[in-house]
Amino acid sequence: MKILIINGPNLNLLGTREPQIYGTSNFENYLGELRQEFKEINIDYLQSNHEGDLIDALQIAADKVDAVILNAAAYSHTSIALADTVKAIQTPVVEVHISNIFARESFRHHSYLSAVCKASLSGFGLRGYAMAIYYLKHENN
Amino acid sequence: MKILIINGPNLNLLGTREPQIYGTSNFENYLGELRQEFKEINIDYLQSNHEGDLIDALQIAADKVDAVILNAAAYSHTSIALADTVKAIQTPVVEVHISNIFARESFRHHSYLSAVCKASLSGFGLRGYAMAIYYLKHENN
Amino acid sequence: MKILIINGPNLNLLGTREPQIYGTSNFENYLGELRQEFKEINIDYLQSNHEGDLIDALQIAADKVDAVILNAAAYSHTSIALADTVKAIQTPVVEVHISNIFARESFRHHSYLSAVCKASLSGFGLRGYAMAIYYLKHENN
Amino acid sequence: MKILIINGPNLNLLGTREPQIYGTSNFENYLGELRQEFKEINIDYLQSNHEGDLIDALQIAADKVDAVILNAAAYSHTSIALADTVKAIQTPVVEVHISNIFARESFRHHSYLSAVCKASLSGFGLRGYAMAIYYLKHENN
Amino acid sequence: MKILIINGPNLNLLGTREPQIYGTSNFENYLGELRQEFKEINIDYLQSNHEGDLIDALQIAADKVDAVILNAAAYSHTSIALADTVKAIQTPVVEVHISNIFARESFRHHSYLSAVCKASLSGFGLRGYAMAIYYLKHENN
Amino acid sequence: MKILIINGPNLNLLGTREPQIYGTSNFENYLGELRQEFKEINIDYLQSNHEGDLIDALQIAADKVDAVILNAAAYSHTSIALADTVKAIQTPVVEVHISNIFARESFRHHSYLSAVCKASLSGFGLRGYAMAIYYLKHENN
Amino acid sequence: MKILIINGPNLNLLGTREPQIYGTSNFENYLGELRQEFKEINIDYLQSNHEGDLIDALQIAADKVDAVILNAAAYSHTSIALADTVKAIQTPVVEVHISNIFARESFRHHSYLSAVCKASLSGFGLRGYAMAIYYLKHENN
Amino acid sequence: MKILIINGPNLNLLGTREPQIYGTSNFENYLGELRQEFKEINIDYLQSNHEGDLIDALQIAADKVDAVILNAAAYSHTSIALADTVKAIQTPVVEVHISNIFARESFRHHSYLSAVCKASLSGFGLRGYAMAIYYLKHENN
Amino acid sequence: MKILIINGPNLNLLGTREPQIYGTSNFENYLGELRQEFKEINIDYLQSNHEGDLIDALQIAADKVDAVILNAAAYSHTSIALADTVKAIQTPVVEVHISNIFARESFRHHSYLSAVCKASLSGFGLRGYAMAIYYLKHENN
Amino acid sequence: MKILIINGPNLNLLGTREPQIYGTSNFENYLGELRQEFKEINIDYLQSNHEGDLIDALQIAADKVDAVILNAAAYSHTSIALADTVKAIQTPVVEVHISNIFARESFRHHSYLSAVCKASLSGFGLRGYAMAIYYLKHENN
Amino acid sequence: MKILIINGPNLNLLGTREPQIYGTSNFENYLGELRQEFKEINIDYLQSNHEGDLIDALQIAADKVDAVILNAAAYSHTSIALADTVKAIQTPVVEVHISNIFARESFRHHSYLSAVCKASLSGFGLRGYAMAIYYLKHENN
Amino acid sequence: MKILIINGPNLNLLGTREPQIYGTSNFENYLGELRQEFKEINIDYLQSNHEGDLIDALQIAADKVDAVILNAAAYSHTSIALADTVKAIQTPVVEVHISNIFARESFRHHSYLSAVCKASLSGFGLRGYAMAIYYLKHENN
Repeated sequence: MKILIINGPNLNLLGTREPQIYGTSNFENYLGELRQEFKEINIDYLQSNHEGDLIDALQIAADKVDAVILNAAAYSHTSIALADTVKAIQTPVVEVHISNIFARESFRHHSYLSAVCKASLSGFGLRGYAMAIYYLKHENN
Repeated sequence: MKILIINGPNLNLLGTREPQIYGTSNFENYLGELRQEFKEINIDYLQSNHEGDLIDALQIAADKVDAVILNAAAYSHTSIALADTVKAIQTPVVEVHISNIFARESFRHHSYLSAVCKASLSGFGLRGYAMAIYYLKHENN
Repeated sequence: MKILIINGPNLNLLGTREPQIYGTSNFENYLGELRQEFKEINIDYLQSNHEGDLIDALQIAADKVDAVILNAAAYSHTSIALADTVKAIQTPVVEVHISNIFARESFRHHSYLSAVCKASLSGFGLRGYAMAIYYLKHENN
Repeated sequence: MKILIINGPNLNLLGTREPQIYGTSNFENYLGELRQEFKEINIDYLQSNHEGDLIDALQIAADKVDAVILNAAAYSHTSIALADTVKAIQTPVVEVHISNIFARESFRHHSYLSAVCKASLSGFGLRGYAMAIYYLKHENN
Repeated sequence: MKILIINGPNLNLLGTREPQIYGTSNFENYLGELRQEFKEINIDYLQSNHEGDLIDALQIAADKVDAVILNAAAYSHTSIALADTVKAIQTPVVEVHISNIFARESFRHHSYLSAVCKASLSGFGLRGYAMAIYYLKHENN
Repeated sequence: MKILIINGPNLNLLGTREPQIYGTSNFENYLGELRQEFKEINIDYLQSNHEGDLIDALQIAADKVDAVILNAAAYSHTSIALADTVKAIQTPVVEVHISNIFARESFRHHSYLSAVCKASLSGFGLRGYAMAIYYLKHENN
Repeated sequence: MKILIINGPNLNLLGTREPQIYGTSNFENYLGELRQEFKEINIDYLQSNHEGDLIDALQIAADKVDAVILNAAAYSHTSIALADTVKAIQTPVVEVHISNIFARESFRHHSYLSAVCKASLSGFGLRGYAMAIYYLKHENN
Repeated sequence: MKILIINGPNLNLLGTREPQIYGTSNFENYLGELRQEFKEINIDYLQSNHEGDLIDALQIAADKVDAVILNAAAYSHTSIALADTVKAIQTPVVEVHISNIFARESFRHHSYLSAVCKASLSGFGLRGYAMAIYYLKHENN
Repeated sequence: MKILIINGPNLNLLGTREPQIYGTSNFENYLGELRQEFKEINIDYLQSNHEGDLIDALQIAADKVDAVILNAAAYSHTSIALADTVKAIQTPVVEVHISNIFARESFRHHSYLSAVCKASLSGFGLRGYAMAIYYLKHENN
Repeated sequence: MKILIINGPNLNLLGTREPQIYGTSNFENYLGELRQEFKEINIDYLQSNHEGDLIDALQIAADKVDAVILNAAAYSHTSIALADTVKAIQTPVVEVHISNIFARESFRHHSYLSAVCKASLSGFGLRGYAMAIYYLKHENN
Repeated sequence: MKILIINGPNLNLLGTREPQIYGTSNFENYLGELRQEFKEINIDYLQSNHEGDLIDALQIAADKVDAVILNAAAYSHTSIALADTVKAIQTPVVEVHISNIFARESFRHHSYLSAVCKASLSGFGLRGYAMAIYYLKHENN
Repeated sequence: MKILIINGPNLNLLGTREPQIYGTSNFENYLGELRQEFKEINIDYLQSNHEGDLIDALQIAADKVDAVILNAAAYSHTSIALADTVKAIQTPVVEVHISNIFARESFRHHSYLSAVCKASLSGFGLRGYAMAIYYLKHENN
């Protein structure tokens, strides 16, 4: 089974940016742990601050992976284009947010992606990615 | 480790109610599977159609369990009282919705509980409960 | 044919509460008249001030009666849980309001039940119950 | 007793227009049934697609009939002028909608007529007219 | 100098409709008084309950009168078409409301005509028409 | 008969301020013309840029004049206090605006005074004051 | 192929009304050009300032023409009744606006017709009618 | 004189719940102090987390006590049913909130009870109950 | 202990203004009663119709009194400046409204002062001032 | 004459993405047909999923082509930056949407581009591009 | 060159009021520094808590100074009257806010002055005044 | 001291785009003047039409410059992602707008950046950049 994790804008700063909200470990380290925990799964990873890159990546992924885990960060709240891509491809997409977006500014309470993704989780910290893989793995069986 | 699952109004109809949205298996069956999967965890369960019952249960649970998994169903969208209870107790509470609430009527898009629960997930079907336990188990270590 | 009439909060005060709006006769007396007028129909009756009771009653009625006449009073405007129950059961439910809710405070103009009930009437006084039975009786043929 | 039924725009298409919403029988046929059921009542009928015609008809009816049954269709949602006429005349007016307007587009949820009519019903199909006559007949006694 | 007074829907009921708001004299009588007071002015008069009639009348008046006094009643609040006509013709139009529309229901507080008419007055009773003529007469000098 | 004209903030600049909206003559000159036209009426005049002064003046006027003509300018749109004073006194108050407030910025479309004044006019230029006096004079007879 | 063009309120003033927005040629002249350009198509034409007339015309056209081009002008923004007619008939209807309605007052940005017409165009001047015919002609093949 | 104090959801947690907002003493202790201070008054007390219980209690109290002090906590912001009960009974009801609800989340700024209670106070801590009794005692004389 | 009572606009009319809302006794008389009831407290009093005067008075009071009772009347709903002053000074301020502001026009339901005052009461009539003193006296001990 | 067609995000998926909305032919094939139909016109084409690319392309096109046909897809609803570019260049831009955006989700009903483009069309399928060229060709003469 | 600095309500408390927002130095001291830095410029200064005083001052300044620096504090958010004065005079006015008003309560995000002042700055602390003078000095050359 | 100026979309058109709003000089020329005026400061410059480029640039700048001056143009109003970057880095960022954004279309009145930048200025033309440098230079001492 092949899963692509796509991280959106500013998530490359993880570990240094607002650590009281996002924690102090960077994503690359965590990715190692994930691959350790889910050895049977092929996990790809991509981060970009460009909305267009995320759209391109999703389109390309459509034919190459079994599922996508998407943390589009701030673009979740503003990008109809990205939501259109999720809707346009057949690959199941799970939405993940590290922080609890409902406990932050009101403009973060709405995500254009939630309605078009298969499912959505928020506030579980980095472990949210593991939960999504856990889910996809079981659904895939 | 002791976890209490609280299900709100109409979830006793699971398996018969709108199966295209909620699936066809009832919760009691699923509970058996859960206990099978997480043998090391003590899982309690309670369902009520009464908002006050859910509040009472949460208050009592506060001193007796390590964590609560709460699917308050329709009360998620209307009950400030229940949210106040979650905020008032120290026990971590994880919010679970079986269906993707963001892909349904707009009055289901907002939950008073999301901001006061530790984290929230929606749309993973019954497996959402397993994911929440998976999370709590790992956090507890 | 078996019909259950469910009355919501404060309707037990009928006859004493705001008589300029709700009239001066209490519901039990009127129930007698109804049974007189529709002798061929088995009419059950239940009133409660508890939202959870109304939900429980609707769920139980689902298998036992041919139709429900529901005047949820103030809960009509706030209870998504009750609306979910109406939607979850197969039994046809007709919404009745004694007063003209559209000629009162604006927060009474919207009912979560209207969209999920089969049909809705408002402002016909106590006779609204008779009209609902008249309708159900003819539809049943 | 004399009752005037006024039907608004597009109701002349009844039977051919969106049959999944409005049914397949036209109003003239149904009118025959109504007169059959309520032989003791003199039932007049008028349909127009012109807002002004409906206003004229209501004004003229004021002195000639005992009650009006008004299905103003789409004008219900936009015509303050028609509502003013209902308020200006003494004759009781009952509002009828064939379909359940609360289960359709949101711009159909509000009717300027509801607050000024004596009472209102929606979603009972063509039988709604019979219910209104049933009500007026009993009130008239 | 030639002035056309155009009255909109339900103003033909003046004198009988809601006398606590609109007074008890009908418009024809008042018209006589107006012509008496402003003998040097040629005053035409037209009333209709049809929005289209008001538009037609305004278009025709454009070339035939020096000014129009328009009380469009309820159409003031809903008719963009009528406002377009006022804007399309060169003849000055003064908006008159008998009652104080700002002291009534909130849906009467906005008039599409106010912004396109030369000026607007409200709440002066029938004398508002005299005031408008007084104004037009002086402006015309 | 004694009438007090109260002008609010910035109306002392009349004649120099935005002449394309307010014209080029100042109010003192116009006051002379008014007194010339209505010789039988005692016309007092007061202008202030202070909201509190306008309130004081209205309270004092209550016992001393037969009517007030109030152009509160920008305070019309923001001062509930001034509206409370109009409501608190018995003296009839007529609201006047020189420009057509409905054809300007949307925050000028609502006046707290309109609902509590006897009547209101807008857009007749300086002649609006004469119209108000004309009205008060006739009402007073 | 037979096409009916229906023009709504004030479009009879074309050529004289606000020429900076609508141009200086009247519709009759333009109709001649259209018939010249599309000789193979039978083009009918109707204009009315009455909402009811437009509804009547659409209903009658339903069985007689292959397509309708509808410029309902101001009624586009206020008439649910007209939109209901478009929805009720089977004949394809194309919405045309001469001016760019999105570059004008905000109350012109929404049209009840857009969602029920087959397609919609705005801002192409009189040529918009030609474009609609061009489209219908090609679709018809 | 007999007064009933009704406390709503989560107020049984007083002393342990969010002490920075609600203080550290529980209500039972405070009740002792109150009875000490107002020896001449018979003070009853009831707390429930169930909306229906509060309604039942209010209805029963109607005939048995001289006044009610109601702190409905979170139900203040969501319960039209409770407000209906306050309106339906003759007994004067005073609304009390321990914390300053206007200095907290915006969904706590509105209370359905305020408009139907005789009076309302907020932010005086537990002493608010004493103030309400002080008031009722003096009004009763 | 020294307390300053500040009354805002139109409260000098107390006793004559809208007596059905504000009662018939003027404030000076009531002040005498207050001083009689709370002999141990030094009560100062100030009324003004000027927003700026209220701000000046609050600033000056900051160093001279132990507490302020503020009834800013209509300025409560519009003055951010006054709220800033309350926030800027250290002296505790209690907000008092004679009438129940929540049972009146909707623009009176929000007060900028409530969130920055220590506590707030509304609808207790003139006795509200006594309650505020009662509170401040006990807090001061 | 030289025309540039710019297509925005996800339009490269045309033919595979949601065929019930967008049809089954891809844009490259259609482009061939277009060039066949309008042989006298030089048609360039560009698609990108990047907002910045669309802006760059429009800026560059400004000096090189006679007109632009812009289908910005989802960016139409969110990109003020793109609208600014359209406004900043002199080249006429025509807005095209393949589907009827007014018959879809409400967040697609508003386009920032409509007000700054010369004209706009929606719902004509791929033929919308041909219509835009037809228009530009005739305007260019 | 002559510049007038006008400070609005509560700015006389600078240095003592909420020092975490406004700093600890008072304005008089800072004014000395300013005059030191811009010796070639004649700097006048005025502070008042009265909206009317600010309006009077602006009107008087119109003929006497070359530019005004206006920090209207809370009146920025509520005073249309003050904005009208800025618009009415010819003298350029620069709006200054010491704190970053966009990072505070939402009712401080909008200023009626911003649209009518020449330019606006916010959040630069007291140095904002120096920046405004720096700007005016350079523009004046 | 090292400062980076970042300009957003369409600012490369400065000098040619809407000169009545933005002036006629291009930014490169102005940059020369700036460097001349602030010789002691090292001023870097970057412009892009791509939101992602601006985010990348800000992230990279975080460790390399002492301060950033950011004119994100249209992205100010739509980009939460960019605001997140400003919040995530430690470097102080000053927001600059050449035109007065509060005097333009309402969708330009709100900037996501204002609340997270240190300070903000708008409407000072190109000199706004100089003012920002002036401020940063003095703060840096």
